[in-house]
Amino acid sequence: MVESRHRAAYAVADPGGTVVLHAGDISRPVYPRSAIKPLQALALLETGAAEAFQLGDAEIALACASHGGEPRHVDTVAAWLARIGCGVDDLECGAHLPSTQQAMLDLIAGGGRPSALHNNCSGKHAGFLSIARHLGYPTAGYIAHEHPVQQRVLGVLESMTGRDLGDAPRGIDGCGIPTLGMPLGNLALAMARLAAPDDQPEPRQGAAARVRRAMAAQPFLVAGTGRFCTKIMEVTGERALVKTGAEGVYCAALTKLGLGVALKVDDGAGRAAEVLMGRLLLHLGAIDEAEAEALAETLSPPVLNRAGRRVGELRAKPI
Amino acid sequence: MVESRHRAAYAVADPGGTVVLHAGDISRPVYPRSAIKPLQALALLETGAAEAFQLGDAEIALACASHGGEPRHVDTVAAWLARIGCGVDDLECGAHLPSTQQAMLDLIAGGGRPSALHNNCSGKHAGFLSIARHLGYPTAGYIAHEHPVQQRVLGVLESMTGRDLGDAPRGIDGCGIPTLGMPLGNLALAMARLAAPDDQPEPRQGAAARVRRAMAAQPFLVAGTGRFCTKIMEVTGERALVKTGAEGVYCAALTKLGLGVALKVDDGAGRAAEVLMGRLLLHLGAIDEAEAEALAETLSPPVLNRAGRRVGELRAKPI
Repeated sequence: MVESRHRAAYAVADPGGTVVLHAGDISRPVYPRSAIKPLQALALLETGAAEAFQLGDAEIALACASHGGEPRHVDTVAAWLARIGCGVDDLECGAHLPSTQQAMLDLIAGGGRPSALHNNCSGKHAGFLSIARHLGYPTAGYIAHEHPVQQRVLGVLESMTGRDLGDAPRGIDGCGIPTLGMPLGNLALAMARLAAPDDQPEPRQGAAARVRRAMAAQPFLVAGTGRFCTKIMEVTGERALVKTGAEGVYCAALTKLGLGVALKVDDGAGRAAEVLMGRLLLHLGAIDEAEAEALAETLSPPVLNRAGRRVGELRAKPI
Repeated sequence: MVESRHRAAYAVADPGGTVVLHAGDISRPVYPRSAIKPLQALALLETGAAEAFQLGDAEIALACASHGGEPRHVDTVAAWLARIGCGVDDLECGAHLPSTQQAMLDLIAGGGRPSALHNNCSGKHAGFLSIARHLGYPTAGYIAHEHPVQQRVLGVLESMTGRDLGDAPRGIDGCGIPTLGMPLGNLALAMARLAAPDDQPEPRQGAAARVRRAMAAQPFLVAGTGRFCTKIMEVTGERALVKTGAEGVYCAALTKLGLGVALKVDDGAGRAAEVLMGRLLLHLGAIDEAEAEALAETLSPPVLNRAGRRVGELRAKPI
């Protein structure tokens, strides 16, 4: 018996803005949440901040990450902050326990406490601070919609989505920055342009290539141990760059196919967003049958009970 | 902007089986999960096991509980097991970290590890073991559908729901026992009979009264710190006995009104099940406007971001 059911909408677009596949209402705005971190990271490249601070794949991948708060995530962000003359107190994202359970247990068992470095968004925030430092803006208040860093990011988002976001519904994300409502169709277009920015101006093309390369090179830093984003990109590399967001949002930039994908589960469930993204990747040919076989437990995860017995599974309907 | 939406079905029934209010498909079977623990606990009373082992309100409340694994939950279950000549190794529910975050942090920071006592179902399992001990059945394997303890519980469920469950869809619950698919209408009927068992045979009437009294007397033991079940019953006492289950199920026995409530959120989200149950309690008059005011943050919980800023809220549509 199917116990619970999720509904979702999704859009697959090409860089010209043509929606080549969709389901549900893709014109209604959704908050993209962390799924647009790879787009926000473009500002880190385009402002020259990444070059000025000699950021490598690790830092750029972390700017795109919702990481698990594992030691390598935390240590890399801490070193990055030091490099730009900032520290954990400059992060305005708030603290939370590491998202990866083992990292959380290790931290607490060792007498530690979660800091803003463990916040899954700390890399994105280090990126914002880097932009502020590089352009000479005050770092305090960098999460405010009116701060020049957020305005710069807004410009990138408007350009990539092809949509004026001035009157977009505006919420506050889990990490304190603004999140702006945008239709899935526009979000898919932005991801298509990240995948294949040939018609974009040159600085954008280079920035997109740099973000793609970093995510593909450092899939662990984009998420963490056992996480869907990481496991997919460990197999696909740059061919399928996937990024999760809170409340059931998932985006993908399919470089080889030149397509962008954006989906939102109506009820906000991440478990459903993952299996739907997996189904779309397979349907679109971004992963092949052999890869799907190897990723079987990721694409259709078992449900285990407390004693470890397999009692069910999650699965997406065929497209 | 409303970010995410949940759909649900619910039934409100009287002890005669009349559905007085409903929404959605209430004839499709749902797995009731932990929401029927108060019904399963009837077997603990009706077999005489509770009397034989001199179980008090605390133990009976824990038999009905999805507890937070807080020290008082764990210690009470441990003492109960000792009283029946069993120990933690007899529990077949599996171990998991305490559901209450502070209890989890305290356990891990103190160098502890989760055991089956921390499993939110450990009280229910202690009840099953008590029945097995009292009736002279083997304790090993008490979670199997075929074990006489589960068959005895099945008999109670069939009688209370007014439904033959022999051919019901059968799943394995998180704690290893069978969970049987049953329509929300029948589940609401069972809860109505728990609330007002006047037409039930005498042993059932006494058992139902005992379960109601225990839950009302020990709302903390039924759930834990900050939990919806506990906060509601701390206000309502026996008037509204509420019990959550996994995957978006919630049940209530409304003693004063003589009604039973059963709901299931399609997508399995507990957050939606809680706000819908709150809305139903208010609509039905099981809590009054003044109580709703005092419970405002429970009935329509704020969404806080990582820095503690209020960024939204959960709310149910008016009935």
